[in-house]
Amino acid sequence: MELPLGFNFAAGYAGIRAKEQDDLALIVSGTPASAAAVFTRNQVQAAPVRLARAHLRQSRGKAGAILVNAGNANCATRTGAKVALACCQAAAKLLRLPVQQVLPASTGVIGVELDAKLITRKLPELHADLCSDLRKENFDRAARAIMTTDLVAKQAYAEVVLRRGTVRIAGMTKGSGMIQPRMATTLGFVVTDAGIPTPLLQGMLNRANALTYDCISVDGDTSTNDTLIVLANGASGVRPDPAEMALFELALTGVIETLAKAIARDGEGARKLITIEIAGASSSDAAQQIARWIANSPLVKTAIAGSDPNWGRIICAAGNAGVKFDPAKVDIDLQGVPVCRAGLAAEFDDAELKEKLDAPDCSIRFALQGRGKASARFWTCDLTERYIEINGSYRT
Amino acid sequence: MELPLGFNFAAGYAGIRAKEQDDLALIVSGTPASAAAVFTRNQVQAAPVRLARAHLRQSRGKAGAILVNAGNANCATRTGAKVALACCQAAAKLLRLPVQQVLPASTGVIGVELDAKLITRKLPELHADLCSDLRKENFDRAARAIMTTDLVAKQAYAEVVLRRGTVRIAGMTKGSGMIQPRMATTLGFVVTDAGIPTPLLQGMLNRANALTYDCISVDGDTSTNDTLIVLANGASGVRPDPAEMALFELALTGVIETLAKAIARDGEGARKLITIEIAGASSSDAAQQIARWIANSPLVKTAIAGSDPNWGRIICAAGNAGVKFDPAKVDIDLQGVPVCRAGLAAEFDDAELKEKLDAPDCSIRFALQGRGKASARFWTCDLTERYIEINGSYRT
Repeated sequence: MELPLGFNFAAGYAGIRAKEQDDLALIVSGTPASAAAVFTRNQVQAAPVRLARAHLRQSRGKAGAILVNAGNANCATRTGAKVALACCQAAAKLLRLPVQQVLPASTGVIGVELDAKLITRKLPELHADLCSDLRKENFDRAARAIMTTDLVAKQAYAEVVLRRGTVRIAGMTKGSGMIQPRMATTLGFVVTDAGIPTPLLQGMLNRANALTYDCISVDGDTSTNDTLIVLANGASGVRPDPAEMALFELALTGVIETLAKAIARDGEGARKLITIEIAGASSSDAAQQIARWIANSPLVKTAIAGSDPNWGRIICAAGNAGVKFDPAKVDIDLQGVPVCRAGLAAEFDDAELKEKLDAPDCSIRFALQGRGKASARFWTCDLTERYIEINGSYRT
Repeated sequence: MELPLGFNFAAGYAGIRAKEQDDLALIVSGTPASAAAVFTRNQVQAAPVRLARAHLRQSRGKAGAILVNAGNANCATRTGAKVALACCQAAAKLLRLPVQQVLPASTGVIGVELDAKLITRKLPELHADLCSDLRKENFDRAARAIMTTDLVAKQAYAEVVLRRGTVRIAGMTKGSGMIQPRMATTLGFVVTDAGIPTPLLQGMLNRANALTYDCISVDGDTSTNDTLIVLANGASGVRPDPAEMALFELALTGVIETLAKAIARDGEGARKLITIEIAGASSSDAAQQIARWIANSPLVKTAIAGSDPNWGRIICAAGNAGVKFDPAKVDIDLQGVPVCRAGLAAEFDDAELKEKLDAPDCSIRFALQGRGKASARFWTCDLTERYIEINGSYRT
């Protein structure tokens, strides 16, 4: 699939992470793009999150570049604000952009000073690479450069054929641990060559985020650096007409959902993607609360890791969600197999279901009889020994 | 230390759990005792929890016996209520008590029918054992019989010398996984030969619970069966005078705190007890919220497992607690060593602190400068590969 027109990408190793592996990425639009973003709701917000917010406000939602580093979150550091600004200034100078049109993002360890020089020294090389013929290769390389404990790079693409022509959407994301989005999570960057005014774009992003990044969790921790940005530069020359906006939004949401699910599937130590569906709740909020509690229960996640159809843990986790329901009206299905009906054990073949639960995709359905019509969908992953190994010695 | 007067204990194997290991315990007071209790706040409550609540209401806070089984939670079962009642009736008949003075409690797997006959058949044997000379041995045996994945039996004792004589307190508890108490957790039984009217006893239990069982967590899951009962039978002939009630309450709280900490230390797969202290919060609620989020962060718990002084994860977890604070006014200490001052890295010897964190007791102190005077204390454990092993195949 073709990348959106008018965007260029570059990545390289700036020496921020100890291991020699690309840790700096640059995403550039040839013309200033409409920019929409959502950020972490953690009380502790990294310097680049604060600066990106300020830049979007000052530029009234216009951006020409995104500068991302991995290996250091630039959070809880003495020089954080200065470092983030210096890096944006260096990029702005090279790209001949007002500094407010450069959006910074960082991911990595918290509380360690980040040396701006590592980035500013490397930037000219990335700048020179932007115009290479290797646009797709550079896009892939940028997607790899923003990874931390991710095992795979995560991209998604879509093309939408509109009356006035075709528009393209492409996105990349990273995230594997410290994942429980609240309005946004981890890093995600989506670019499109459709022409969309900023306020419309922000509305689409908010709605898409609520259904995707806001519905995944790996470990229930929300990071200090979560950032999800969408740029729309209009380079296709196509601006969806009002009747087509919904079509475009559907495609954009699809790309963002693919990215979000890729994060849950690549959760630290995960072997399985778990899709949780809630039905029959009295409100969307109630449905989402129940989904979130099931998704974050270590006991549910370890049971799925062990392919153990232990539905008692699912009803127990739901009972902790702070949502009133009658346990005698709960139906639970695992992999489409009824395991609980009206709050009681259903008859099922244990060995057969155990085998079905060995699949890389597992589904949990939790339905309340006769409560309401609200539903929710949530994605998480199983919890394995590997999560502990990874996180017992991340910093040192 | 001597056990409280007027209480007898018995335990045996009723065949509820597959493994031949005691799974039934009986705690009996020679005379009806004042009874106070706190129960789980999960929406899904096991049959014995509902029946124990009803019995306490009907008896107006009097109880003569506690009947406990492990190996089956008697929760989300067709016959749950009937089974719990039949077992209490059988015990009441043998003990010549009104059935409302028998309090049931169960722990184990959810959603599997419990056969009442296993218990009623075994009860006469336990009844015969009650009057043996082996009171201490039987107390220990009962403490072992209520265990599930616990590695060690958990008991605590106190003696309080009052003006009119000495009173004794003894308690036992179980719990290792599915631990995040909300007003109560797991199973805990405390008996005393002091004479304390029920309303006073319930007040003491509520306050003690809020400072102890309500302040531990292993995995953030609250079980469907959590029950903590205190019986005061007055067999010592000593009723603390009003001025001494505070002294007695202190000792009772101490026993309950010892039991609660023993649960956190024996958390599934745990190698370390983590004590979390919050200081300088604007309210107790705020302090407890922050403590709870730090205690439940898998990233904090795995860092401690790996003896990794990764304070960034602690400030990040605190930032998710839904409590407003200025990150630039946060001080964090690990094992008494300053690792973060005013939201920034403090200088410390990494290797030295790593060694200190290898201890079986770890402390995290999180202080807010200039916010307020409220504090909180919370206990949890580290998160190790063993937790996953245990929980990947509990049911099957």
